[in-house]
Amino acid sequence: MLQHAPSLTRLVGELKKLPGVGERTALRLAFHLLKSPHQLGSLAEALLQVQERVKACSVCFSLAEQDPCPICTGGRDTSLICVVETSQDLLALERSNAYHGSYHVLQGAISPLHGVNPDDLRIRELLERIERGGVAEVVIATNFTVEGETTALYLARQLKPLGIKVTRLAHGIPLGSDIEFVDPATVQWAMKGRSEL
Amino acid sequence: MLQHAPSLTRLVGELKKLPGVGERTALRLAFHLLKSPHQLGSLAEALLQVQERVKACSVCFSLAEQDPCPICTGGRDTSLICVVETSQDLLALERSNAYHGSYHVLQGAISPLHGVNPDDLRIRELLERIERGGVAEVVIATNFTVEGETTALYLARQLKPLGIKVTRLAHGIPLGSDIEFVDPATVQWAMKGRSEL
Repeated sequence: MLQHAPSLTRLVGELKKLPGVGERTALRLAFHLLKSPHQLGSLAEALLQVQERVKACSVCFSLAEQDPCPICTGGRDTSLICVVETSQDLLALERSNAYHGSYHVLQGAISPLHGVNPDDLRIRELLERIERGGVAEVVIATNFTVEGETTALYLARQLKPLGIKVTRLAHGIPLGSDIEFVDPATVQWAMKGRSEL
Repeated sequence: MLQHAPSLTRLVGELKKLPGVGERTALRLAFHLLKSPHQLGSLAEALLQVQERVKACSVCFSLAEQDPCPICTGGRDTSLICVVETSQDLLALERSNAYHGSYHVLQGAISPLHGVNPDDLRIRELLERIERGGVAEVVIATNFTVEGETTALYLARQLKPLGIKVTRLAHGIPLGSDIEFVDPATVQWAMKGRSEL
């Protein structure tokens, strides 16, 4: 049947490109959408709207519908810049409600294995922002992976000569976890960073 | 950030309506699509194309781009009608390559609990097809669930007075399975339906 409906074959192909979606899931999603034409139309429209409206902010490179983005223009503390790899990371930090400064989205992390060099990231733009003055501290919030740590080290080396404070998010035991099951390296960090009660 | 991009919030909302997609997956899919604008555009286009082109065949109610569908016009044995609940079931039967007759898609199964009565299915249209003549056998291939079995019984009662052969797909042990782990009801059916070697 599918071979008689090229447009359906194409839709299944497109759905299969999504992360975590295989042939079976793609088929299930396609038939689900076919059963509810209204939902299918809404999804297509939502996709086109996002494509048309969401752009990277020209200051901090986070995704937003305005340029500069509402975070950059929202009266936040611009002497503080938190550097993240992606807009998703920014979202996680905003959700924590623990940070009220501005952001800089690198759009990735240094990964020579995947051909991502410092020049491919928004590092030049970060340095330009700092050169414009008024920045007191850069909080590096890249991921705690090999790529993220490499990027953090690279950034620290670039930023320290500019005479600004460079900090990194703390390592430690995640909330709600059983120490028994936390990996040894994290326990080491937690011990080193212990604080007085 | 998300609250500053209503179109992104909307896309996440639409993605969340898909079966098996929760908040986290929806966010991951949305950001994945934002990272590859080309893929986003293709997906939107594929959705619109399916919406525009794929319709239910007016004879057998399977989904196709032509009406009547290529199965109905493809010189298949029209004296044989296989009744399935959905187009997905039709697809599974076609994949098995074990059937070369025509189909009839009920677009569901009788389920009083969910408010699905015989009148909500394409049963009237099936009876009309049979009344037009030329049908020798109806193979009932509804699912082996309470709803599917109910529908099969209902259909059998409607069709037998018309003097045509009514059959049902065989129950038995699925290929490649360990009898140890097969449920007792299936083993019972397999024993009743045993054949000589």
